Amino acid sequence: MSKLRVNCFAISLDGYGAGPGQDLENPLGVGGIALHEWFFPTRTFQAMFGKGDGTTGIDDDFAARGFENIGAAIMGRNMFGPVRGPWPDETWKGWWGDNPPYHVPVFVLTQHARAPVAMAGGTTFHFVTDGIQAALARAREAAAGKDIRLSGGVATIRQYLQAGLVDEMHIAISPVLLGTGEHLLSGIDLPKLGYQRADHVPSANATHIVLKRNR
Amino acid sequence: MSKLRVNCFAISLDGYGAGPGQDLENPLGVGGIALHEWFFPTRTFQAMFGKGDGTTGIDDDFAARGFENIGAAIMGRNMFGPVRGPWPDETWKGWWGDNPPYHVPVFVLTQHARAPVAMAGGTTFHFVTDGIQAALARAREAAAGKDIRLSGGVATIRQYLQAGLVDEMHIAISPVLLGTGEHLLSGIDLPKLGYQRADHVPSANATHIVLKRNR
Repeated sequence: MSKLRVNCFAISLDGYGAGPGQDLENPLGVGGIALHEWFFPTRTFQAMFGKGDGTTGIDDDFAARGFENIGAAIMGRNMFGPVRGPWPDETWKGWWGDNPPYHVPVFVLTQHARAPVAMAGGTTFHFVTDGIQAALARAREAAAGKDIRLSGGVATIRQYLQAGLVDEMHIAISPVLLGTGEHLLSGIDLPKLGYQRADHVPSANATHIVLKRNR
Repeated sequence: MSKLRVNCFAISLDGYGAGPGQDLENPLGVGGIALHEWFFPTRTFQAMFGKGDGTTGIDDDFAARGFENIGAAIMGRNMFGPVRGPWPDETWKGWWGDNPPYHVPVFVLTQHARAPVAMAGGTTFHFVTDGIQAALARAREAAAGKDIRLSGGVATIRQYLQAGLVDEMHIAISPVLLGTGEHLLSGIDLPKLGYQRADHVPSANATHIVLKRNR
């Protein structure tokens, strides 16, 4: 069966996956951008945004792995954008421009229905209003045997973890302090939920951890 | 002025500095011993307990640094032992045998007065009943210009951090999940308290972080 995977999810030394106060200027919350400094220089990131050659090595290996064998993605509504409440119109189409870096069907969890939005490059945003299990079922069907990437944000990953639905999770611990924001693991007992540490690969820029769930 | 330092304080990937259920069999709480697996093989640890040569390198450099220029130590009562409430007698003298690895005056925070206990090798345990500021003042006097090591446990470090009294803190993030126990940083906004990350050195066994406070 295809896996539900988290990849390249960065947290701070004090455990935050996003800073506080997300808005149009701070898509990752105040200070949140620093979590991803290990990722930006990689060849994988640079290839996606066409700016240069980029670095290879540990960080890029993990970055690249996040895009392998992915047939669909799931994200929370706050990761899709800063709009809250009912959609005022069809204007907002994500943070990523006309050609988002997903290239697969993306299922956005929301309480407010909206027609699908087809973007360039194979990404279509589907809006799912009937919960995380329904989104996973639709993503699994769309993925047609490939894996599903659970993109974020923090609240969404926490819901899937607590339901025991995440099969594999790569976390990058970045050497930054946030002090406040959205905590990824607070109050979540991962061993009790069946998760074990499967891999631990430090680089100069982040500590990469892979957790797997016993089925 | 001499610094108040935390050194070699190990936390899990999910941020716990000790497991749950500390008792005579589990001085670091259930599962807590795994936090220190980076430390045990080092030359510094092996020299202290006389069992072999030990490893050198990043982990040992951090281990050794924890003992440099230390003139006194402070610890919480639960780090000193599993006894709770009033001291039933003078029997308990710490976990460390006749010659504890401190070799300096050690100030133990407790609500229950007790006469000092002089051990072999220069360690004397003093019991301080009038709070963290008083313990720090006494330790500073005893240290005579050298630094003071804040040994632990979690609750004690949290109190000193929240009071802004820790000058420097080395944390070793170990590649283990605990899931529950005593969380070191939960609810503590380190940047707001003036702390910044000063160093980040990953090894195969732990991610070493040094935090410093702006004076």
